Amino acid sequence: MATPNQAYRTLDAAGVRAYVANLAHLAERLGGTPATWQVREVSDGNLNMVFLAEGPAGGVCLKQALPHVRVDPSWKMPLDRTFFEAAYLREVFPHVPNLTTECLHFDPEQFILVVESLSGHKVLRTALMQGPVNPDIATRIGQFVARSTFATSLLAEPFEKVMNRRICFARNQTLTRITVDLILTDPYIPHPRNHWAEPELTPVVNALRANAPLRTRVDALRLHFLSNPQALLHGDLHTGSIMTTEDDTRVIDGEFATYGPIGFDAGLFIANVILSLFSSPSGQNSSLHINMINNFWQEFEKTFLTLWEAQNPPQDPATHYYSTALGPISQTHKQAFLNSILQDTIGFCGTEIVRRIIGYAHVADFSALPTPTHRAARKKAALQFATACLSPQTPIFSIQDFLDLLLKN
Amino acid sequence: MATPNQAYRTLDAAGVRAYVANLAHLAERLGGTPATWQVREVSDGNLNMVFLAEGPAGGVCLKQALPHVRVDPSWKMPLDRTFFEAAYLREVFPHVPNLTTECLHFDPEQFILVVESLSGHKVLRTALMQGPVNPDIATRIGQFVARSTFATSLLAEPFEKVMNRRICFARNQTLTRITVDLILTDPYIPHPRNHWAEPELTPVVNALRANAPLRTRVDALRLHFLSNPQALLHGDLHTGSIMTTEDDTRVIDGEFATYGPIGFDAGLFIANVILSLFSSPSGQNSSLHINMINNFWQEFEKTFLTLWEAQNPPQDPATHYYSTALGPISQTHKQAFLNSILQDTIGFCGTEIVRRIIGYAHVADFSALPTPTHRAARKKAALQFATACLSPQTPIFSIQDFLDLLLKN
Repeated sequence: MATPNQAYRTLDAAGVRAYVANLAHLAERLGGTPATWQVREVSDGNLNMVFLAEGPAGGVCLKQALPHVRVDPSWKMPLDRTFFEAAYLREVFPHVPNLTTECLHFDPEQFILVVESLSGHKVLRTALMQGPVNPDIATRIGQFVARSTFATSLLAEPFEKVMNRRICFARNQTLTRITVDLILTDPYIPHPRNHWAEPELTPVVNALRANAPLRTRVDALRLHFLSNPQALLHGDLHTGSIMTTEDDTRVIDGEFATYGPIGFDAGLFIANVILSLFSSPSGQNSSLHINMINNFWQEFEKTFLTLWEAQNPPQDPATHYYSTALGPISQTHKQAFLNSILQDTIGFCGTEIVRRIIGYAHVADFSALPTPTHRAARKKAALQFATACLSPQTPIFSIQDFLDLLLKN
Repeated sequence: MATPNQAYRTLDAAGVRAYVANLAHLAERLGGTPATWQVREVSDGNLNMVFLAEGPAGGVCLKQALPHVRVDPSWKMPLDRTFFEAAYLREVFPHVPNLTTECLHFDPEQFILVVESLSGHKVLRTALMQGPVNPDIATRIGQFVARSTFATSLLAEPFEKVMNRRICFARNQTLTRITVDLILTDPYIPHPRNHWAEPELTPVVNALRANAPLRTRVDALRLHFLSNPQALLHGDLHTGSIMTTEDDTRVIDGEFATYGPIGFDAGLFIANVILSLFSSPSGQNSSLHINMINNFWQEFEKTFLTLWEAQNPPQDPATHYYSTALGPISQTHKQAFLNSILQDTIGFCGTEIVRRIIGYAHVADFSALPTPTHRAARKKAALQFATACLSPQTPIFSIQDFLDLLLKN
């Protein structure tokens, strides 16, 4: 567990200017002289300091880990999470160069990560709250999940390479502990980190916690999250981790990166689109959200299968997972694999909706609704849908079944 | 990958005497003077040198890795496998002190592992070939698998501890590659390492390889072996890795240790009991073998559930996997977990039977049969049973279903 060392100092605007000026390849990207650069703090998430530095030729984004949660200094946090974000970018960037940001610099002493600055991009959550967005954004995220997970899975590489990567990311335990606790545990028990403002939700929460099959499903999902290292996950793929314009979409904030079930990334994305749907004025935009979920899944599935198809025949028979393929991978095998991802997706989607309404870290989306009564009603509806996602009795065999269920709620 | 260094020297009898004399706690265990000790080479497996050193007060067993496969010097092999065997013993010994051997010494320069010497113990495979054995031996192995896997799983410990152990054993890649290739791949494709003496088997092998659903099942098992790190496995739990007397049974040779599905250890053990059954003169001993499999599974299941039960309520709420248990773990969850282990067990059992008949490393058992015709017939029957184990169409929902299927073959 990394702790601040002598070199570590929290950045401020002046510090950012000096830091960038000191690194030729970054200074060159900004152009002009350091005195002319604009430096702004844009810290927004719960954990880190974030700065934008812009010069006449371009800009960079600096992210520095703090030794505590930014929004709660009493909650201590190791600094090395920035290492895992840098490592994640280095692994996935070659496979999704237009869908994330390049790691331009990583400083292991000050835990500073420097990436391309995105100009004109909005956080997808904010964009969704402000009005309709281009549903192709979801298509791009489908691409991102398919390419980043396939490339780091046993389907694409000899197991030795996958195991070496697992060894690296299995050390990202502090953030994995946050996922396990905040998403997969706390909301289902009384815990001081949980909260909700609307008293109308209390009976719904009580019913959720008293629902034995649901608790069993959540126990199974928690175990599954920790024991099914299918691929390198982003680990926090909500609509606040996506920056977008109409025609350019980038995934950021990969510090939760861990090996896990692919459905975890897919489930978090879909859940946050659904939270946007439930918090938009009744009825409005529902076709947009439905399209987004459908686009995401269709693109994910198509891209993943295309990449898998391209592995037949194997390219490196000596060491490849399919080195020794028993022939072309059967459709049965592929379909079973994708079906299991869909089941995981639905389950993790349910847990993400629940924790964003009654857990520690809520989403801004519902604040768009005019009154507490509206908010309570829509949150209740979202929790009911999440309950259906987490019910072993709900028959969902395709994304269409899932969308049908969503339209009923 | 460890390669011989300057200090490394292959042991011989004189070297063993000097080596043990040099280590006070080992010398004391033998008693008397080094000149009076008996040193014998007893290398038997495919990979290592093994020596027994005995003195008036007791004995020790020394195992040294060679930089190649013992039975094939052209097949180079890293030395660090002894490290993983020592690490495995250190992890599991506290949980199964009477069912394995204690690691008395590990030398990371010479890759020498020293364990208790077992006197009067026979290799279980040999004992089975010589006549009936005590069926309680299988009960003890059920204990061993339950205790060693439960203790190292997410069900017993905070995930951070499990992940740190996974990090260690994920480096045991050379031996994991052997498992992936020799057990889960090669037998299903033409490969120079495969061989069988009986021409009658050739059509059976061809049919096996042409069986598309079976190939799909083997592809899925290979993927599952590499992506389901449920617990720390022995990784090579055949009847040659078990030393026994009537009333004392010890598991040895844990160098294949890796995190994987619990059913892999269970499946390998059961498969080797079945290979003994198919190679015993027709009909003879079948009730012994059936009892052994039943004893093994019943004990495994009972012990595993008892250990799980004891985790309710959790003992360390701050960090435990069940810290945040959503209440007592439901019977549904437990039953689903054990059912999935059974399905894995049956699958891996099938692959072990196949590879021991047509793969690289055969078993001695069939040599007890009087003629090539007998051997061919029994091997054919065993392959047919393995085919049923690997068929997605075979309905097996309990160990009794499995035994019924076995009795039909």
